Amino acid sequence: MEVYFDNSATTKPDKEVVDKMVMALTVYYGNPSSLHQKGVEVEKMLKQARKQVAKAFRADTKEIIFTSGGTESNNLALYGALHAKKRQGKKLITTKVEHPSVLNVFRNMEMEGYEVSYLNVDPFGRIDIKELEDCLSEETILISIMHVNNETGTIQPISEVGRLLNRYQNKPLFHVDAIQSFGKILFTPQEIGADLISISGHKIHGPKGIGSLYVKKDCRIVPLLLGGEQEAGMRSGTENVPGIIGLGTAVELIFDDIENKIIKMRKLKNRLIDGIQTEIDDVKINGISGEGSAPHIVNISFLGIKGEVLLHMLEQDHIYVSTGSACSSKKRGQSHVLKEMGLKDEEIESAIRFSFSHHNKEEEIDYVIEKVKHHVKNLRKIMRR
Amino acid sequence: MEVYFDNSATTKPDKEVVDKMVMALTVYYGNPSSLHQKGVEVEKMLKQARKQVAKAFRADTKEIIFTSGGTESNNLALYGALHAKKRQGKKLITTKVEHPSVLNVFRNMEMEGYEVSYLNVDPFGRIDIKELEDCLSEETILISIMHVNNETGTIQPISEVGRLLNRYQNKPLFHVDAIQSFGKILFTPQEIGADLISISGHKIHGPKGIGSLYVKKDCRIVPLLLGGEQEAGMRSGTENVPGIIGLGTAVELIFDDIENKIIKMRKLKNRLIDGIQTEIDDVKINGISGEGSAPHIVNISFLGIKGEVLLHMLEQDHIYVSTGSACSSKKRGQSHVLKEMGLKDEEIESAIRFSFSHHNKEEEIDYVIEKVKHHVKNLRKIMRR
Repeated sequence: MEVYFDNSATTKPDKEVVDKMVMALTVYYGNPSSLHQKGVEVEKMLKQARKQVAKAFRADTKEIIFTSGGTESNNLALYGALHAKKRQGKKLITTKVEHPSVLNVFRNMEMEGYEVSYLNVDPFGRIDIKELEDCLSEETILISIMHVNNETGTIQPISEVGRLLNRYQNKPLFHVDAIQSFGKILFTPQEIGADLISISGHKIHGPKGIGSLYVKKDCRIVPLLLGGEQEAGMRSGTENVPGIIGLGTAVELIFDDIENKIIKMRKLKNRLIDGIQTEIDDVKINGISGEGSAPHIVNISFLGIKGEVLLHMLEQDHIYVSTGSACSSKKRGQSHVLKEMGLKDEEIESAIRFSFSHHNKEEEIDYVIEKVKHHVKNLRKIMRR
Repeated sequence: MEVYFDNSATTKPDKEVVDKMVMALTVYYGNPSSLHQKGVEVEKMLKQARKQVAKAFRADTKEIIFTSGGTESNNLALYGALHAKKRQGKKLITTKVEHPSVLNVFRNMEMEGYEVSYLNVDPFGRIDIKELEDCLSEETILISIMHVNNETGTIQPISEVGRLLNRYQNKPLFHVDAIQSFGKILFTPQEIGADLISISGHKIHGPKGIGSLYVKKDCRIVPLLLGGEQEAGMRSGTENVPGIIGLGTAVELIFDDIENKIIKMRKLKNRLIDGIQTEIDDVKINGISGEGSAPHIVNISFLGIKGEVLLHMLEQDHIYVSTGSACSSKKRGQSHVLKEMGLKDEEIESAIRFSFSHHNKEEEIDYVIEKVKHHVKNLRKIMRR
C-alpha cells in the first residue's frame, strides 16, 4: 500500500484537472491577448476559471487575480498594500507563526523603516486578540494573519480579528493567508472581514505554479509585476492558461459536496489520533486537535526519537509524511512555529506532520498506525541501548 | 488549411513537452522540498531541467533561475539589479522600443528617483552605439536592451554593447531581454557580454507560466519574491514542476539541430516577403528584413487598409496573425515601437506581424500570400469607393 499523508506540502492533481490542462496545452494554446479566434477562445476559458474561483469565495470575478502561486499571492498582497498605503502610516502587524512568504516580507519591510509587531501564540498556536488590540494604532496600515497554520493545523480567530478591525474608523487592510484553509474550512471574505486572501492551486489537487489573490472591491493595492497589464493591470505577464484552467477546475471539484469532504477528513484525523494515542506511549499532539483545528493536519511528537528518522523508516513502507513544512524542511533549522508555541527541543525534534486529503481512506490510517507503532517501538529500543 | 503565424505571441507546446508535463502532474507530483522519496525524485527532475537550460546558454546550472515567465524574468532582473546596486548610482539606460515588462519598470523607477535614458532608434528600429556611449557615466548602474524586437524582429547590436561596457572599470550590469531571440538566434552570454538574460517558455513551444533568468556567476541581484527560499533564495515559492520540466524539454528540443531550424524559418520569411512584394502593391516592410533581423518575424504595412480588419479577414481563412504585440493588442493604442521608428500613422495602422516557427511549412506561406493578396485587393476596393 502507498499512503500519501503529506497533502499540506502538495497534493496530487485530480484527473479532471490534468485533462483540462492538456486541453489548454494542445488545443487552446492561443495567447488570450491575441485579437483572433485563438485568443478569443482562450480568453473565454480564463473567464470561466475566474468564475469558478469567484464562486468559491462568493465574490465578484473582478475581485480575483491569478498569480504564480501562494508565495506570489502573499508577496503581492503585502507589498501591494504597503505601497498603496505608505502615506497613511508605518505600522504593521502579523504573527510569529506565519509562513516564510509572509514573515520574510515583513522582515524586509522592517529594513525599509516599517515598524512590525509580531504577535505571540499560546501553547496551542493561537494568537491573543487582546494583544492584537493593544498593538493596533491609528498608524497601523496592514495586518496579516494566516487562517490555518501549515505545520499544526491550528485555526486562528480571524473572524474575531475582522470584527475588531471593523470597529476602527481608519481600518487597516486585513490580509489572510488561506493557503491551508481554502477548500478545507468553509468561509467567505465577508465572514472573516478580510480585504485580501491568498490561495494556492497545488494544495487543493490543482497544479503547482498557480495561485490566486482575492482583493476586495474597494481595496486598492499596487501591482508587484509590471508589463503588459494583464489581470486588469494587477499582474502583468502572459496568463498561465493551463495553470489557471487547472486551478478553476480544482476549485470547482473541491467545493463540490465539500461538507462531506471535510467530515471525511476530520474522521480520518480523529481515527489517526485515537489510534496513535491508544497504541503508542509518550506521544504529544501539538496544537489543537478538535474543532479549533483544520480537519486535515495533525502534528504529533513521538518522544525519544528523531522525526526525520521516523520519516525515512515510514518511507520504506511507502508512507509519505513530513517533519514540518516542506518549505523549510531542507534548512534543518528547528520549526519556528513549534518553538513559538513553547515546545521543548525534544518535542520539536520528534514531531511528524500527517496531512490528509479527501482522497485518503480509513484503511490507510490503520496501516499507518500499525507501521508507526512498529517503527517507534524499534527506534526507542535502539535509542535506549 | 489552418495557418498559425502568430508564434511571437505564443507557440503551441510540442507533444513531448506536454507528455513530460503530464508525467509531472500525474506521477511526479511531490514537492521538491519534501525529504521523502516523492520529493527527492522530483528534485532530480528539476536538476535535469536546469541542466537542459544551462546547456543552451553554455552556462553553469547555478546561473539559471526559474521564474513564472518572461515578465517576471525581466522584472526580477531589473528590480533585482537596481536594489543590489542602489548605493553605486542612480542612472539607468534602456531603449524606447523595449517590451512593456521592461519599459514600465523603468518608468516606475523614475518615480523612485532614478534617472533613466531612453535610447532612440533609427528607421530600422536599431539603437545607435554612439548615443549609448554618450549616456554612459560612472553613475550608470544598469543597462537593459532587448535582443530581438517582438514587433519587427530587428536585432539590436548587443554584442557591441557588451564590448563597449567591458571597457568601463565600474561596469554597469547589462540585462538582455532575449525572449524573442532565444532558440531563434545562436548566442551565448559570453558573446553578448550580458550579466542577466531573460527567456520565456511559451515562445519556444514550451508552456505558458514558466520562464528563466540567466544570472552570471559573479553578478549579485536581490530577489523579488520572498518566502521559502527556493531557487537558492533567488525565487521563493514551490517550484512549478510541470512548467520547469516542460521548459527544459522545450529548450532541449529547439536546440536540437537548431541551425537547420533557423535556416528553415529564414527561408519561410524570405518566401513570404518576396511573394507579398511581388504580388501586392503599396506594401512596406517595417524594420530590417535581412540578416540584421530575426529569422521568424516580419512586420508589413499594407497601405490604405486597417491592419485589424485584415487580421479578421484572414482569421476567416483560418490564418492567425497579429497587428503588433499580443501584450498591447487590446489597448488599441498605436505601437510605440513603430512610432519610435518614425513610421507614419497610416503605416502603423496598416501593419501586420507574421511570426513563424520551425513547424511552419512553405505551402502555408503560399496559401497566406494568396489570401492576403485577395483580401488586400478587396479591402482597397471598398476603401476607395
